[in-house]
Amino acid sequence: MKFLNNLRLYSICDLYFPALRYKSNDKMDTDPAMANFKVLFVLTQLIGLTMIVLMGCWIGVHMGGLAGTSNPSIEFNWHPLLMTIGLIFLYGNAILVYRGFRSLRKKTLKLCHAAVHVVAFVLTVLALVAVFDSHNLRSEPIPNMYSLHSWLGLAAVIMFCLQYVAGFAAFLAPGAKQSVRAALLPIHVYFGLFGFILAIAAALMGITEKAIFSVKDYSNLPSSGVMVNLCGVLYVIFGALVVYLVTNPNYKRKPLPEDTVLLTSAND
Amino acid sequence: MKFLNNLRLYSICDLYFPALRYKSNDKMDTDPAMANFKVLFVLTQLIGLTMIVLMGCWIGVHMGGLAGTSNPSIEFNWHPLLMTIGLIFLYGNAILVYRGFRSLRKKTLKLCHAAVHVVAFVLTVLALVAVFDSHNLRSEPIPNMYSLHSWLGLAAVIMFCLQYVAGFAAFLAPGAKQSVRAALLPIHVYFGLFGFILAIAAALMGITEKAIFSVKDYSNLPSSGVMVNLCGVLYVIFGALVVYLVTNPNYKRKPLPEDTVLLTSAND
Repeated sequence: MKFLNNLRLYSICDLYFPALRYKSNDKMDTDPAMANFKVLFVLTQLIGLTMIVLMGCWIGVHMGGLAGTSNPSIEFNWHPLLMTIGLIFLYGNAILVYRGFRSLRKKTLKLCHAAVHVVAFVLTVLALVAVFDSHNLRSEPIPNMYSLHSWLGLAAVIMFCLQYVAGFAAFLAPGAKQSVRAALLPIHVYFGLFGFILAIAAALMGITEKAIFSVKDYSNLPSSGVMVNLCGVLYVIFGALVVYLVTNPNYKRKPLPEDTVLLTSAND
Repeated sequence: MKFLNNLRLYSICDLYFPALRYKSNDKMDTDPAMANFKVLFVLTQLIGLTMIVLMGCWIGVHMGGLAGTSNPSIEFNWHPLLMTIGLIFLYGNAILVYRGFRSLRKKTLKLCHAAVHVVAFVLTVLALVAVFDSHNLRSEPIPNMYSLHSWLGLAAVIMFCLQYVAGFAAFLAPGAKQSVRAALLPIHVYFGLFGFILAIAAALMGITEKAIFSVKDYSNLPSSGVMVNLCGVLYVIFGALVVYLVTNPNYKRKPLPEDTVLLTSAND
C-alpha cells in the first residue's frame, strides 16, 4: 500500500473529511499506516455512496421508481433503497465512527455511534413497513416471512436492536463499571460486526430474489441485471472495507488525554 | 459462558477430539477460557455435520437425489452438496486447525491446514463441474455466470485459490524470512476469513435461487422450503462460530518450545 502514499490524496481527504485531520502530536503526517487509513476510509465512503446511487438508479430506471401504499408493488422499492442506506451504509458508518473521527472525545464518539444507529434503525423500520405493505396490500396478498432472505434479514434487524439496547445500557448509560465495560466490549464488537455482515448477506439474498422475480430475461444479463449485480458486488466491497478498517489493530483509536479524565469521572 | 463449565462436556470432548487434550504444563484444566473453547469447538463440528446431513437429506428427499451427466438437472444436486462439504465445512475446519489441534507442532499444523484446503479445493472443482454440466448438457442449455450468486461464488473460489498459492509461497515453502511471514500473516488471515464469509454468502444466495426455482409452493413454506431455509441458518451459525473461535484472542494458540526450534531452522 506504500504507493498510495505518493498519490497526494491527503489534501482531498482533508477537504472532504476535515475530522480526519489529526492533532500535531499524533504524528499523523509521519505515520504511513494512518495515511493508508485515510485513503481507505475515503474509498469506503465513495463505494458506499456509489452503492446507494446505483441502487437508486436501478429502482428509478428499471423498477418503476417509488410509490406509496396506493401502488404496493412499486412501494416495495423503498425496501432495498432504505435498507441500503440504513442497514448497510449507516450501520457501517456507525461502526466506523471511532476510526474516522478519532480526534473527537470518546464521549462525543459514543453519542455519534448511538445517533447514527438510531437513524439506521428508523430507515430500517420504514424499509420493513414497505415490504410488508407490498405483500399485504396487493389484491392477491403474498405470504410474509417464508424466504431465507426474510429469516436472516429479520435476524439481522433483531440482532441490531438487541445490540443497541445492550450497548446503550453497558456503554452509554451511567452506572456500569469500567471493568465490566472492558469485558463486554469484545462481545459488543463481535456481535456488531456479525449483525453488519449478516445484514449484507441478507441484502445479497434480497437482490437475488428481486432479480429473479423482476428482471426480465435475467439469465441473458440485460443492463438491469448487470446494475443490480454490481450493486451486490459493491455491498461486498463496502462491507469488506468497513471490517478491514475496524479490525486492523494499526487503525485502532488511541485514547486522548481528555478520555482519561472522562473515564475516571461519573459522567462517562 | 461460565455455566458451560459445569456441563461436564470435557469428557465427551476428549473422547471425540483427543487432539484437543493439552499437555499438563498448558494449565488446560484450570483455564476456563480454554474449557469454553472446547465446548464451542465441538458445537461448531456438530453444527457443521448437521448442516451437511440436512443438505444431503434435502437433496435425497425433495430434490431427486444425485445423478451423473446423463441427467443434468439432477447432476446439479452435487453442486450444493459438495460446496457445503468443501467450501464451507472443510474451509472452516482448515481455518480452525491451528485452534483445534494446538498441541501439535506448528509445521504439522501448517501441513494439515494446506492438506484440508486441498481436499476442499478438489470438492469445489467437482461442484463447479456439476453446475456447469447441469447448465450446458440440458436439451435447452441455461446461460452460465449471469447471477450475483455465480459472480460472488466464483469470486470466493478465485480468492480461495489465490490465498492458497500466496499462503503456500509465503508460509510453507522454504525461503521467506520470518519477518516477512509475520508481516504477511494478518493479510493472510484477513483474506482467508473474507473468502470463507464470501463463500457462505454465496451459498446463501445459491440456496435462495434453488428454493425459488425448485421448491414447489415455496411461499407457503412446505417442508422442503423449511429444510433448505434451516440449512442456510446452519451455514450462518457455523460461519459465526468459526470466525468467533479464530478471532478471539483468548483462544489463540501459544507457540510450543518445538516451534522455536523449527522457526530458527532452515526447514520451517
